[in-house]
Formats: sequence, C-alpha cells, structure tokens
Amino acid sequence: MDIVEFFELSCGKWFSQRTSHHLAFQKAEAGKSDLIIEKLDPTAADVVKLCEQCGVDATTALLGLKTTWSGAMDWDPNKREGSTVLVAIAEPDQPHTGTLLRQHGIVSEAPIVGRYALGADEALTLITDHESIYTEERWWFASPNLRLRSSLLKQADGYSTSSFCSEIRMGLGK
Amino acid sequence: MDIVEFFELSCGKWFSQRTSHHLAFQKAEAGKSDLIIEKLDPTAADVVKLCEQCGVDATTALLGLKTTWSGAMDWDPNKREGSTVLVAIAEPDQPHTGTLLRQHGIVSEAPIVGRYALGADEALTLITDHESIYTEERWWFASPNLRLRSSLLKQADGYSTSSFCSEIRMGLGK
Repeated sequence: MDIVEFFELSCGKWFSQRTSHHLAFQKAEAGKSDLIIEKLDPTAADVVKLCEQCGVDATTALLGLKTTWSGAMDWDPNKREGSTVLVAIAEPDQPHTGTLLRQHGIVSEAPIVGRYALGADEALTLITDHESIYTEERWWFASPNLRLRSSLLKQADGYSTSSFCSEIRMGLGK
Repeated sequence: MDIVEFFELSCGKWFSQRTSHHLAFQKAEAGKSDLIIEKLDPTAADVVKLCEQCGVDATTALLGLKTTWSGAMDWDPNKREGSTVLVAIAEPDQPHTGTLLRQHGIVSEAPIVGRYALGADEALTLITDHESIYTEERWWFASPNLRLRSSLLKQADGYSTSSFCSEIRMGLGK
C-alpha cells in the first residue's frame, strides 16, 4: 500500500469514537464524531492553496484528503463541526515517506508541515514538530471497514496527551 | 531491542489508564489501574508451570513477565485485582519473533499459546487465536516512562472491541 492507496481507502463515511488520556492529570475524556472523508485531486483548489501557504511547489502534490467532522465530547452537549485538509507531497525515490501538509479548518490557524511514513505493516505514521509541540500519530486499518488511530502529543515539559480513535465505515460515499 | 530487553523495560510500578471502544454498540468505557510488573527468571516456578500446562519444553523459556494489577472501571466502584503471567519462548534463528504463553490469574481459565513479533520500530505485537477469539495487541514505549498498548478483539461475527492503555511509570521497583 502506498500513501495514495491509504488515502483512497480512508474515503467514505465513518463513525468515530475518540478517547484522550491526559497523562499528567490522570483524566480521560471521550467523544463521538461522524466523519466524511474525501479525496482531493492534486489540482484541487484546497490542495493548491495549502501548498502555496506552506511554500511548497503545488506540482509536487500527490493528492489531498479532506475530513469533515461533526461531533461532540461527552462533557459538552454542544455539537462541533470542522474540517481538516492533508496534502501528501511526492519525493523522488522515496515511495513510502514524504512531506505532509496539514490545515485545520480554522482560517486563523497556520498550516503545519510534517512528515509521513508508511511502514511495512501498512500503518501510516504522521509526525509534526511545530513551535515546541511534537505530535506523532499512527493510523492503520484492521480491515477495510475499521480504521484505528493513536496519537501522542509532546510539549515543552514532556508527553501530555495520548488519544485513540476507533472508526467504523458507515458508507462508501457522502 | 529484543523481547528480553522489552520485558525488562516494562518492569516497575505503573499507573494505567484504559479505554475500551465497543464497536457494534458505539459505547466506550474507561478505567484506571495500578500495575506492578516483575521479570520472572526462566526457571521460576510460574514460568515452569505455565510451560508444562501448554505442553512446551520449559528449558526453551527465555523469561517471564508477571503483571499484578489493582484497579476499577468508571462504572463499577468495586476495585478488582488480578495478575497475568507471560512467558516468551526462544526460537532458533528467530530473535524477533516467537511463541508467547499467557496465563490470566484465574485458575479455571486455560492458558493461551500465542505469537509475538518485535518490529523494527521496537513495537511488540502479540497475537492470540483461540477458540474463535482472535486478539491482536501492540505495545510500545513512547519513552522509557510511557508505555502505550492498543488491542483489538475479533470474534466469530467480526471485530467487537478495541482498547487503548496509556501507562506512566511511577517507580522502578515494587
């Protein structure tokens, strides 16, 4: 599996259960979301715009992935919505690792330039290191209809939060 | 890192936060435990006994790991205690994969013979396939003092539960 196939397998409607463990406070919080994940062509406006914002040549974009989510945390009755765009950048002779651009759907938030690596076990590792915040995520498919994601957040004073998402495919398209 | 080093790094006192996602019911449950993890020599009584129960030559045991836990789930005020013994079996010319024996501390429960694999990324994968129940676990150290574990349970009708533990080292010994 390469990054294009991984992103394509991610497309569809998903139900996501998320739990975060706050390590120092020894507290957990849980939430649920509905996700719609769509593939973006390398020439799509969102892809070109994100490349430009990151100072990356847009012709090196392999593809993008847009995740639109709607959900709530257990402690907060208000439903929240948002979207995230990822863009994978081709690197010559490096089919399984490369640069990954990420834009959370908040215009005021600067996009982040990170790295991805697709392992021999077909798990995708995403790493960002930005302004003293380091994140390491691992995404993998237990089956085509069950995607799992773990993530770890490290700040200046050490690891602060770990999270885990279990995502069940609810449909192929929108 | 080999399995002996992985087990040795696991020894000590840990605080564990656990979350299980029940996939079909779209429900989560959380809990907390204190763990004491000790290394068992290959000639320790618990190791020899577990090898014998599994019909495995006890002289092939590399080492054992005993985890004693005390904790509670959020929905249940009663504290529960228990222990688990793991024994890694040496396999000629296979330093990074092998057989793993597991005994939960319930005498009536039969021990389980599974497999382990230590990846190039130093994560330990544990697989058991026993009476139509398949489990796949991944254990890894984010740092020497932060151990993470994900697990996935598959039954006859498909994947049923995923779990995630974040474990913080609270001390080196008992």
